[in-house]
Amino acid sequence: MIDYQNVINTIHQNLKDEVNRGVVASYIPELAGVDINNFGIHLRLINGETYATGDWDKKLSIQSISKVLTLAMALPMYPENLWQRVDVEPSGNPFNHLSLLELEKGIPRNPLINAGAIVIADILVTLLDNPKEEFLNYVRSVVDDPTINFNETVANSERMTGYNNFAAANLLKAYGNLHNDVDTVLDFYFHQCAIEMTCEQLTKAFFMFANHGACCQENVLISASQAKRINALMLTCGFYDEAGEFAFEVGLPGKSGVGGGIVALLPNQFTISVWSPGLNKRGNSLLGMKALEQFTTMTKHSIF
Amino acid sequence: MIDYQNVINTIHQNLKDEVNRGVVASYIPELAGVDINNFGIHLRLINGETYATGDWDKKLSIQSISKVLTLAMALPMYPENLWQRVDVEPSGNPFNHLSLLELEKGIPRNPLINAGAIVIADILVTLLDNPKEEFLNYVRSVVDDPTINFNETVANSERMTGYNNFAAANLLKAYGNLHNDVDTVLDFYFHQCAIEMTCEQLTKAFFMFANHGACCQENVLISASQAKRINALMLTCGFYDEAGEFAFEVGLPGKSGVGGGIVALLPNQFTISVWSPGLNKRGNSLLGMKALEQFTTMTKHSIF
Amino acid sequence: MIDYQNVINTIHQNLKDEVNRGVVASYIPELAGVDINNFGIHLRLINGETYATGDWDKKLSIQSISKVLTLAMALPMYPENLWQRVDVEPSGNPFNHLSLLELEKGIPRNPLINAGAIVIADILVTLLDNPKEEFLNYVRSVVDDPTINFNETVANSERMTGYNNFAAANLLKAYGNLHNDVDTVLDFYFHQCAIEMTCEQLTKAFFMFANHGACCQENVLISASQAKRINALMLTCGFYDEAGEFAFEVGLPGKSGVGGGIVALLPNQFTISVWSPGLNKRGNSLLGMKALEQFTTMTKHSIF
Amino acid sequence: MIDYQNVINTIHQNLKDEVNRGVVASYIPELAGVDINNFGIHLRLINGETYATGDWDKKLSIQSISKVLTLAMALPMYPENLWQRVDVEPSGNPFNHLSLLELEKGIPRNPLINAGAIVIADILVTLLDNPKEEFLNYVRSVVDDPTINFNETVANSERMTGYNNFAAANLLKAYGNLHNDVDTVLDFYFHQCAIEMTCEQLTKAFFMFANHGACCQENVLISASQAKRINALMLTCGFYDEAGEFAFEVGLPGKSGVGGGIVALLPNQFTISVWSPGLNKRGNSLLGMKALEQFTTMTKHSIF
Repeated sequence: MIDYQNVINTIHQNLKDEVNRGVVASYIPELAGVDINNFGIHLRLINGETYATGDWDKKLSIQSISKVLTLAMALPMYPENLWQRVDVEPSGNPFNHLSLLELEKGIPRNPLINAGAIVIADILVTLLDNPKEEFLNYVRSVVDDPTINFNETVANSERMTGYNNFAAANLLKAYGNLHNDVDTVLDFYFHQCAIEMTCEQLTKAFFMFANHGACCQENVLISASQAKRINALMLTCGFYDEAGEFAFEVGLPGKSGVGGGIVALLPNQFTISVWSPGLNKRGNSLLGMKALEQFTTMTKHSIF
Repeated sequence: MIDYQNVINTIHQNLKDEVNRGVVASYIPELAGVDINNFGIHLRLINGETYATGDWDKKLSIQSISKVLTLAMALPMYPENLWQRVDVEPSGNPFNHLSLLELEKGIPRNPLINAGAIVIADILVTLLDNPKEEFLNYVRSVVDDPTINFNETVANSERMTGYNNFAAANLLKAYGNLHNDVDTVLDFYFHQCAIEMTCEQLTKAFFMFANHGACCQENVLISASQAKRINALMLTCGFYDEAGEFAFEVGLPGKSGVGGGIVALLPNQFTISVWSPGLNKRGNSLLGMKALEQFTTMTKHSIF
Repeated sequence: MIDYQNVINTIHQNLKDEVNRGVVASYIPELAGVDINNFGIHLRLINGETYATGDWDKKLSIQSISKVLTLAMALPMYPENLWQRVDVEPSGNPFNHLSLLELEKGIPRNPLINAGAIVIADILVTLLDNPKEEFLNYVRSVVDDPTINFNETVANSERMTGYNNFAAANLLKAYGNLHNDVDTVLDFYFHQCAIEMTCEQLTKAFFMFANHGACCQENVLISASQAKRINALMLTCGFYDEAGEFAFEVGLPGKSGVGGGIVALLPNQFTISVWSPGLNKRGNSLLGMKALEQFTTMTKHSIF
Repeated sequence: MIDYQNVINTIHQNLKDEVNRGVVASYIPELAGVDINNFGIHLRLINGETYATGDWDKKLSIQSISKVLTLAMALPMYPENLWQRVDVEPSGNPFNHLSLLELEKGIPRNPLINAGAIVIADILVTLLDNPKEEFLNYVRSVVDDPTINFNETVANSERMTGYNNFAAANLLKAYGNLHNDVDTVLDFYFHQCAIEMTCEQLTKAFFMFANHGACCQENVLISASQAKRINALMLTCGFYDEAGEFAFEVGLPGKSGVGGGIVALLPNQFTISVWSPGLNKRGNSLLGMKALEQFTTMTKHSIF
C-alpha cells in the first residue's frame, strides 16, 4: 500500500523552496501578476479517496487545460465529423504553427494545439444555443460545483493580446474550416481559457478520463472508447512541444496550461493536478513537471 | 526607329482571340464578374509620346499594383526606418507565406508581398492624418487626374473575404511589427487595392520609376536612388512566385495585380501597361505576360 | 479469461480474404517480390504462453523494427550522451524530414525516424569492435536463436537505392552529429534493417519491453526505467506519421517496418506481432493495423 | 567621359585599409589559409579597354562563380530540357535549402544554388565524354588562356568536407533528378568550383554575358537570348540570400563565390570583377560588395 499523503507531502517539501521556478506567462497581462510561489497538488483515486497539499484550494486560470473539456463536450455531439476537421497527430513543430496549418491546408494537427481547439470551439458555437453558458454549465456539472466561473478580466485580456489566435482563426477561415465568424468563435475560446478552478476541481473535471467516461457523479459523459481516445491525444499532444519528453519522464496522459496548471491521470487508478505558475521555456509548469516526475518515480505509476 | 503603334497593334492582334485566357480571380466576389475579354495596352515613352490599343481606356481594379505606389509614398517620408520593418529579398515560397513570416519573426520578405504591403500601409496610417484620403490624393496628383477613386464595393468585398490578410496582419501584430490596430490598417489596405485606373492612368502613375523619380508633371516625388531601389524590388519581387520567370522572359521591372493589370517599365525609356483579367495559375494576367514577352522580343527592349 | 487463440483466429478469419491489402513497398527492389498474401499473427503472454495463426513462422524483413533493437542495445552503453544527440519528440511532419533536420541543426527528432536511427547506428559503430556481428549476436541472444541472420541481398538492395538515407547521413555529418564515415554507418544501418525474423521471433525480441527490461531468457538487458522510456518512444513515434492514429485506435506502444511487420506490447501483459506485407499510404501494414485494432477492441487491452 | 582608372583607384584607396573585412571561408580547409588582405579590381569595357588595381593578377578560387560558366556551357547543348530539371526562381530561404528541395520534389529553385548547379553538372556529365577536361578546355577557350587550371588540393578538400553537397545530390537522386552517380557528378562539381582565375581572367570569362553571347575572341558561344536569360538569373539569384540586397544596392547582374570573388556586368557596357577573401555573414565578399556599390554610385551605371 502506497502512503499517498506522504508521497505528495514529500514532493511538496522537495520542491516548495526551489529557487528556479521558471517564469510566469507575461503575454496575457492579467496572468502576469499571479504569485509565483503558489504551489499545490491534488490527487483523487478511482475509489474516491483524495489527498492534497499546498495551494490545492486556490483558483488558477485553467487556460489550455480547457481544450480537453471542450473536446469531451463536442465529441459525443459530433462524433463522426469532428475528426474530418481536426487530425490526431502530434504537431512536432513548436516554432511555426501557422506554417504547419498552411502546409496541411487548414486541418489542424490535433485538437490540443490552439488552431485545433479553435476548430472545436467553432463546432460548439455551431451546436449550442448559448455556447459560453452551456459550456460553463457543462463544466460546473462535471465538477458538481455551480460556483465555477469565467474570469472576465482574463478573457478580455486575452482578447486584447491574442493576435496569434486571431491569425490562426483567420487562416482557418481562409481554408473554410471555421464555420462561424472569427470574433464569435474567439470570444468563446478566450472565455473557455479564462475559466478558473482549484486543483481539487481539476481532478474532478478529469475524473471521467480515468473512469471509462463516467464523472465523479457517475454520470456517463463520454463512452469508454472516447475516453481512451482523449487519453491517447493527451499523451501524444498534451504538452506543446514537450509531449515526448513528458511521455518519457512521466508516462501519463495529461494536459498543461500557461496558467501553470497540469492535470494527469492513470486510467482506472487516479487523476492528479499540480499548480505552480512559473513555466519552463517550453511553456509547461516547471515545478509541475518535476512534481509529476517525482510522483511517478516514487509510486511506480505509469502507463508504460 | 521602332513603329510602336504597329508593335502593340500586332501584339493585340496576335492575342485578342486567344481561347486560353486563364481564369478571372474569384476569391474577391466583386472582381469575379469582370468580362474576361477585356484586353488593353498602353505605352508611354519617356519623351511623352503615347500609344494605345484595345481597352486601354476602361477602368480596372489595380489591386497589388497599388503596393508600389504606397511604397513610393512612404519611402521619402520614412527613409531610414522602413527597411528595418520590411526586407528586400524575394520571397521564393508561394505556398506558405505565413510560414516564412513566422520563421523570420514578423519581418516580411519584401514590400510587394501582402504582409510587406500591410506593414507599408501601417507606416502610412501612422504618418498621415487622413490616410485613405491623402493616399488617394497622392495617386490623383501623380496621375494628374482628380477622378481616380476607390471602388467601395470592391474594398468591402475584400474586407469580407480577406481572411488571409487578417491572418497576416494579426501575425505581424503578434511580432510587434504593426503599430496601429489591425482593422484600421486593413481598411486602408483594402481601399488601396480597390483603386480603379485605366491602362493610360497606370503608365502615368509609374512614369516616375522610369524617369529618375519625377512624374509626368515633372514634380520630383522620389529621389533617383529611391526610384532605382523600387525598380530593383519590382524586378526581383513584382510577380509573386513568377518573378524569376518574368525577369527571365520579359526582363523589365514591373508589378501585376489580381485584377489582371500589369505595369512594367524600362528606365529612361518607357512605361507600359497591359490589362487582361484572366490569370495564369501563379496569379498573373495570362495574356498580359504574353503581351509583354512579345513586346520585349519585338522591340529588343530589356534591362538585360 | 480471454480465449486468446480464439481471438487471433477470429481476427485472421475476418481479414485473411480482404481484397484491399495496400501495396508492397517497391522502393527496395528486393522486397517488392514478397507475396502480398502472407498474413501471420503471434502473441506471447508475460507468463510465457504463446498463441499463433497464419504465416507466423515465415521470415520477414524487419526493416524499421530494428530501430528499437539498436536503441535497446545502445542505451545501456551510452546512457547519458545518447539523448544529447537525438531528441524524444514526435516528428509530426511526414513530407519534409530533411527540412526538420535542418531547422533543428542536425539533432533528429527521435531515434525511430531514419535520421535518428542513423545516429544510433553511428553510436554503435563507435562503441563496438565488429558492429554488424556484435549487433547480430545481440539480437540472436535476445531471441535465443542463433539462426537469425541478415539478408545480404536485401542489405545490398537498400544500399543501391537508399539515396534519402545517404542524404540524411551527409546532412548529419555536415552538422557534426555523425562521428564515423557515412559509408560505414550506412552499411551497418542497411544491415540492421535487412535482418529477417518470424512473427514468433519478433514477440521474443520485444519481450524485454513488456517485462521491465528482462528478455525471455530472464537476462536483464535494460533497466526498467529504460524499458519505460523506449515504450514511451514507441507509442509517440513508432508509426511514422500515423503515431497519433495508432495510439488513438490501438493504444499500445509498438513499431512497424516497411516489410509489413508490426510488433506491439502491453507492459506486464504481452507482446504481439502481425505480418502482412501490403502497406497503407502512410507506410504501415494495412492489415496489421486493422488486426491490432481488432485485437485491442476484442480484448479491451490498452494502456489507456 | 568617366575616368575609370581614377574611379577604381579611389574605391581601392577607400577600402584597402578597412579593418572590418569579414571572415575567410573556413569550411573548405584549403581556402581558410588565403591572405585576407588580398584586394583586387578589374574592369573590362565593351570596347576592349581594361582598368585594374590591387591584386587583380593573383589567382583566386572561383567557387560558385563557376556555376554561371557551366550553365553557359550546358544551355546551348540542352536548351529545351534544361528548364524542366531546374527552375528559374529565387530561392529566398537561406537556412533550409534541402527543405525547399523536398517541398518542390527535387526540382532546384534555380541553377545558381548548389542543388541546381549539381543538376547542371549532371547534365554536363551526361553530355560530355570527358567532362572535367572538356569543361576546363571550354573555360580556357572562353578566356583564351590555356594556363587556367583546377586546384586539385582544393577540389579534394571540398570532397572531404562537402557533406551538404552529398546530401543535396543524394536527395536529387532520390527524386530521380540526377542521372549519373553521385560520386561522379560531385567529382565534376568539386573540380568546377576549384578552378582558379585572376580578376582579369574573370572579366574575360563573363564578357559574353555583356556582349550578346560573344566572348572576347568574338566567338559566339551562346545566343543573345541565352545571355539575357543568364543575366536575369544572376540578378535575381546570384548572391545567395542577398540577391535582393545586391540588386537593390548595386543594380547589376553578377555572381559571387565563397573564395571572395565577385563578377558583375552591365549589358553592352562592361564586366567588372572584385576580389577580397573576407565574407559577410551571408557568404558574399564584404569589401567586394562595398566596392561594387561605390562603383555604381560613382559611375551611375546600373540596369535600373
